[in-house]
Amino acid sequence: MELVQNNKCFDGEQRIYSFSSETLNGESRFGIFLPPQALDGQKCPAVFFLAGLTCTEETFAIKAHAQKMASQLGLILVTPDTSPRGENVAKGDHWDIGQGAGFYINATESPWSAHYQMENCIASELYDLIIRNFAVHADKTGIMGHSMGGHGALTLAMKYPEKFSSVSAFAPICAPSQCPWGIKAFTNYLGNVQEVWAQHDAVELIQSKGTLFSEILVDQGLKDQFYAQLNPALFKAACEKAGQKLTLREHEGYDHGYYFIQSFIDEHLQFHAVQLGA
Amino acid sequence: MELVQNNKCFDGEQRIYSFSSETLNGESRFGIFLPPQALDGQKCPAVFFLAGLTCTEETFAIKAHAQKMASQLGLILVTPDTSPRGENVAKGDHWDIGQGAGFYINATESPWSAHYQMENCIASELYDLIIRNFAVHADKTGIMGHSMGGHGALTLAMKYPEKFSSVSAFAPICAPSQCPWGIKAFTNYLGNVQEVWAQHDAVELIQSKGTLFSEILVDQGLKDQFYAQLNPALFKAACEKAGQKLTLREHEGYDHGYYFIQSFIDEHLQFHAVQLGA
Repeated sequence: MELVQNNKCFDGEQRIYSFSSETLNGESRFGIFLPPQALDGQKCPAVFFLAGLTCTEETFAIKAHAQKMASQLGLILVTPDTSPRGENVAKGDHWDIGQGAGFYINATESPWSAHYQMENCIASELYDLIIRNFAVHADKTGIMGHSMGGHGALTLAMKYPEKFSSVSAFAPICAPSQCPWGIKAFTNYLGNVQEVWAQHDAVELIQSKGTLFSEILVDQGLKDQFYAQLNPALFKAACEKAGQKLTLREHEGYDHGYYFIQSFIDEHLQFHAVQLGA
Repeated sequence: MELVQNNKCFDGEQRIYSFSSETLNGESRFGIFLPPQALDGQKCPAVFFLAGLTCTEETFAIKAHAQKMASQLGLILVTPDTSPRGENVAKGDHWDIGQGAGFYINATESPWSAHYQMENCIASELYDLIIRNFAVHADKTGIMGHSMGGHGALTLAMKYPEKFSSVSAFAPICAPSQCPWGIKAFTNYLGNVQEVWAQHDAVELIQSKGTLFSEILVDQGLKDQFYAQLNPALFKAACEKAGQKLTLREHEGYDHGYYFIQSFIDEHLQFHAVQLGA
């Protein structure tokens, strides 16, 4: 693990690290915001943020405007990259597949399977790295994300509820099996097997896993230019059927980007702080 | 004036416009954040933010994390570009000169003078455009900036105190006549005439103009990687000599970038709101 960048921010530190990832079979990076409480050596709750298509480990730190509230609440924020990277890593034909578009799953199909193991990377390797190296309360870890990363947050939370005790999302891809982005990614990464897809689809997972969280928070803009990819209504119906409490907030006039995220990020951080008993 | 982008943000709107600039002799852009109060038709105070080297009209909107507080205070934020742009606009040999580095002055020397008229563009053309087209209190307008834009804010405020009633800066280039960035820019844009340079140098101007503002606020990081270019001590001494009240806050551990700016931007907006009687 090597420190790449470190900027003081709201009495905390916004850092970027690189590390040699076994699961991704190459170098990867993550961002981490350490609030002043963590710098003082106190154990703090941590929230992972999974970013959307085309983003990197730095996007959230620059654009989401989360550090002020995280500093006040004493929350550590962890931002993984969205895919493996590098010369020898398969590229896609468009920004919705390949580098920048790992979809937080473990690819089984060629040429992707050699590096595209984002699920294992985040839920095991990076998770352990963070717990081992920073002042994190291992039993107070949450996860959130945006768009492709909202899909990632919802599905990883349901797959690893022993690791992630709170979950929220901004404009998540709720049903990747039923939208163009998800169908393209799953076909490429997982092959054309619907039963496999169901293991990585929030709408399907909530029905098989049942109630795992006291509450899930989702914010969705009603002027979202990618609304047709997201299917919040399917997730809402699936949560109702499963008995999972969902707070789905739909916001008039807000679109898909980070100006939407920054407008509600403080409330997500407060939600996680409450859920994690911070 | 043409709307290029519009994103809802904290119940306000973060917009980008392009306009055909007479002073720059070509198309230019600016960003504007309209708080909900302005969208409701109330007249609001406005603060111009002048960005630093390499930045555009969009940098502040993405990186400074100002919209939440501006929305609460009912402040309009205006962010001009940092130079003229375009195929037929002279480029520099490095990022500290030419496009992205207009230094907020009117160039008199070739090849720069054909387009590099940022002082007239901002203090006249754009200023008038904003007053004419948005719900701005013309007598409640302030200016702030960062680095090269800190120099721009301090000098434009002192040159046009009838337009700008409040002024603050982050890590400003206080004495461009005495640092490598400023000497290079002034030599290129203005020629090698020291008396002319003095008209565009905050340390020189404060001595000739005297006390114009009830207070000037400057924040400076003590881990600023460009500290040697900035000379806050010279500005402090010049303010003391001129009897101008200056609040110069020096912050341990903070560097030159937007993680520093975001950490203190709310206090600058509050400062302007108080100064402008908002």
